Amino acid sequence: MAPPSAVDIEGVTDTSAVVVTEPLTVNGVPVKRAKSGKLVAGVAAGTSSDFFKSTSCQFKPKSKNFEHRLTEEAASRAAPSLKGLAKYLSKPGILSLGGGLPSSEFFPFESIDIKVPQVGQFSEQETRESGVQVHAGKHDVIEDKSVFDLSIALNYAQGTGSAQMLRYVTEHTEIIHDPPYSNWQCALSVGSTSSLDMLYRMFVRRGDYVLSEEYMFATAAEALHPMGVKIAGIKMDSEGLIAEDLEETLNNWNEEERGAKKPFVLYLVPTGQNPTGATMSFERRKQVYKVAQKHDLIIFEDEPYYYLQMQPYQGPDAPQAPPPASHEEFVKALVPSFLSIDTDGRVIRLDSFSKVIAPGARVGWIVAPDHIVDKFVRLSEVSVQTASGMSQMILFKLLDETWGHGGYLDWLIHIRVEYTKRRDVLLHACEAYLPGEIASWTPPAAGMFHWIKLDWKQHPHASTKGVRGIEEEILETCIDKGVLLVPGSWFLAEKSIEPTELFLRATFASAPFDKMSEAIKRLGEAIRASFGLH
Amino acid sequence: MAPPSAVDIEGVTDTSAVVVTEPLTVNGVPVKRAKSGKLVAGVAAGTSSDFFKSTSCQFKPKSKNFEHRLTEEAASRAAPSLKGLAKYLSKPGILSLGGGLPSSEFFPFESIDIKVPQVGQFSEQETRESGVQVHAGKHDVIEDKSVFDLSIALNYAQGTGSAQMLRYVTEHTEIIHDPPYSNWQCALSVGSTSSLDMLYRMFVRRGDYVLSEEYMFATAAEALHPMGVKIAGIKMDSEGLIAEDLEETLNNWNEEERGAKKPFVLYLVPTGQNPTGATMSFERRKQVYKVAQKHDLIIFEDEPYYYLQMQPYQGPDAPQAPPPASHEEFVKALVPSFLSIDTDGRVIRLDSFSKVIAPGARVGWIVAPDHIVDKFVRLSEVSVQTASGMSQMILFKLLDETWGHGGYLDWLIHIRVEYTKRRDVLLHACEAYLPGEIASWTPPAAGMFHWIKLDWKQHPHASTKGVRGIEEEILETCIDKGVLLVPGSWFLAEKSIEPTELFLRATFASAPFDKMSEAIKRLGEAIRASFGLH
Repeated sequence: MAPPSAVDIEGVTDTSAVVVTEPLTVNGVPVKRAKSGKLVAGVAAGTSSDFFKSTSCQFKPKSKNFEHRLTEEAASRAAPSLKGLAKYLSKPGILSLGGGLPSSEFFPFESIDIKVPQVGQFSEQETRESGVQVHAGKHDVIEDKSVFDLSIALNYAQGTGSAQMLRYVTEHTEIIHDPPYSNWQCALSVGSTSSLDMLYRMFVRRGDYVLSEEYMFATAAEALHPMGVKIAGIKMDSEGLIAEDLEETLNNWNEEERGAKKPFVLYLVPTGQNPTGATMSFERRKQVYKVAQKHDLIIFEDEPYYYLQMQPYQGPDAPQAPPPASHEEFVKALVPSFLSIDTDGRVIRLDSFSKVIAPGARVGWIVAPDHIVDKFVRLSEVSVQTASGMSQMILFKLLDETWGHGGYLDWLIHIRVEYTKRRDVLLHACEAYLPGEIASWTPPAAGMFHWIKLDWKQHPHASTKGVRGIEEEILETCIDKGVLLVPGSWFLAEKSIEPTELFLRATFASAPFDKMSEAIKRLGEAIRASFGLH
Repeated sequence: MAPPSAVDIEGVTDTSAVVVTEPLTVNGVPVKRAKSGKLVAGVAAGTSSDFFKSTSCQFKPKSKNFEHRLTEEAASRAAPSLKGLAKYLSKPGILSLGGGLPSSEFFPFESIDIKVPQVGQFSEQETRESGVQVHAGKHDVIEDKSVFDLSIALNYAQGTGSAQMLRYVTEHTEIIHDPPYSNWQCALSVGSTSSLDMLYRMFVRRGDYVLSEEYMFATAAEALHPMGVKIAGIKMDSEGLIAEDLEETLNNWNEEERGAKKPFVLYLVPTGQNPTGATMSFERRKQVYKVAQKHDLIIFEDEPYYYLQMQPYQGPDAPQAPPPASHEEFVKALVPSFLSIDTDGRVIRLDSFSKVIAPGARVGWIVAPDHIVDKFVRLSEVSVQTASGMSQMILFKLLDETWGHGGYLDWLIHIRVEYTKRRDVLLHACEAYLPGEIASWTPPAAGMFHWIKLDWKQHPHASTKGVRGIEEEILETCIDKGVLLVPGSWFLAEKSIEPTELFLRATFASAPFDKMSEAIKRLGEAIRASFGLH
């Protein structure tokens, strides 16, 4: 007999005896929540993803242990001493003059209201017209109006984030990635830039190397240099990092020559990579994961653009392919994450609401084995503490109370369609205005960036100016013509390497359609001028 | 002829020629702002406190330079390479496909409304009844309704924080502290815990010592231990850190014995110190500053409780002294900060809205010389980025657009009066219920904490149990009687030191009045039981 699935459960009254062994789905969430009972989590309540995962997680094997990879600093960080008080607080009738939390009577906010789109009516125009006003009061929990209120959200909180938002991101993570080991957990962050800074401090030491893509997210590289950490850039193609080059680099690592031990941290942006726009195929991910297993790497899977995966590019003048017709289709259309194939627990996934809700929220989260999340939370407690409670409340009201998991996926489908439109406008402009004999590209499948390669060897002064010289000339000519793009060499992971190819990064994230086209037209003129074409 | 002051300017139409040489006041702010013209600061606008200080700052000498104190990591941190694009963006008509900022059309928020107290009607009850609804729209700037809107606040921002909130904290800092050197600046933080973590990483190295109070804010100590940094605890009395002991410690520093160079970072909570509740007098601050000058220290002035300075304690059953009658009186009633006497620029002040607005905002700021703030911002850019834009918007709407600087001071006076009430309830209970022959204290002048000393030598097993043994017994007896306080030894800066005195920390920040009294009654019973009194 097949084990009962979440879907089977509908109509069952006493769910407490039901052990769900199927992965969590959007429809399974209400069932799971009903089974756990109402969420009770007051000011600075201790919490953990373990409370919010479906029982199916228990049937998976435990991850390997990666504590030996922690820096001395991270390994030695213990729980705050004042947490020692917590065990006494459960005593019935105890009066505490212990913790130094301010009283909510001194928070000068009676309520926060947000106006947000209804599911399915997501545009700015529709939001203005049919958006719903959602209310968060100061004492909604006592008044039984919500499980989260301002008296909780505006006070101090644990380093995990609030139970209310932790529940949401834990469920979301299980729905999308269903990590294949049992002891995964999430913790909120103040955004992935901060997560990355914290993870670097947890895993790398002065003098170490970190492995990454040869063209790399500039901030991720610039965070490392002052820490005295070097980067070994791994070759890329249109599917991102090349597994064979990673393997070769590690197989041939010469400690003496490099002056450093063989690295074990691999930093990756697998989807819609910044700056190259490359998205690793599922096959490529499996190859890279295999190398990571062989050389015992930890993968920092930084995925701000994961939900900016677009519809397949249909070519010039072709209409957009029809969007996913259901949540299941949408989830299936996403390239599987490293987390979803991570049987060992060697992937630390960095997630963020920045690109899909709003960067100003400064809310993200990480997913990793419990012993790693635990150390991340320890570091949060003595540094960022956790994400803004105002942001957490606003996201909770939108994502949990208004949209739910299904509505959020609908929003992500909306974003997918809109970014596809933007990309297509840019690509059509490139096809129309750029000289095909010089400029080439792979249509980006995800993210915000289009990576244009110029055949610099056709430049009249190729032999004297070299890649960097021509790149500089192109940048200046672009400025003259009134368009700004970022030169590819600015993103080189190893600054000292002389690039053999010339790229320009263009974003289609923000400019209005007509300006994007005009910008590419100017780029075409700049290239022609620089290369002496007519 | 005296130079024109801010007050003189009222009625002057063309203020552009007026150079203000008086320190900024609450009433001077509108004049100063009118002179600068409307604040224009869009998405991720570059900004600096220099734009928001009054011209009087220019007449002060420059600070000394403390860059030689920076760690190798902090010193080598440069501006992000993509900032190199900024210089091109000013070119008229340029179309940018450069920066990767998402379009605000994908932020699913039409507006945020907050209900907040009117000035002078600050209680929860009054806020419910007469609070005002304040509105933040997505495109308020274009629609000329505000200088800050959601399309800006919800996007990425600079490491300084938004220009809008930076202006407010800069003005506030000048009104309250008027730092005596010209090149001071502010930068927003995600709260002082994070500021401190960042400052530690900017100034201390593994193996270093940091100087601090012998009883120390636990998190500030626990952040240091895993970094391999030791703490030299300086003796305290009821006015906090003792300047003579600081001087002696530094004069007699034996590098060989300590295995470390003479420390130069002094971490202090000068006002309402956690855990001792001690507030340093102005005289004491000047003494400590003098030692800091002599030994070339940098002072981390961590001041979360600065505005929890209370009315002078009037004794048992006495009514509260009348509150400050004006903003000027209120500001004068505050003990001057280290920042306000910092002619050298050796003070880095950590400020926060956590204790006076709401901890969940996760918004604070630092004040320091420009070359230090610059490095703090560099670190922010590759880590926390800056405070939540949602929090910044909500604080801006409350503090800048609704209350203004004057209304905020009125709120702080309200808090002052309310905390005085709370403290007095606790003190009256202590006077009523604690055995005077065992328990003694200094009435706290600021903060959230009451520090109760027990004469442990009167304990029947004093000689066998020692301080720690009796402390443990008291804690257990307290739990038995149903009250929780924190044992003083948990806060020792140097964990290995055997304490010679026994303290308990009680907070009056959060419990209702009747529960506070009942808790202290139970404490009295616990002490009597433990000490064998009747």
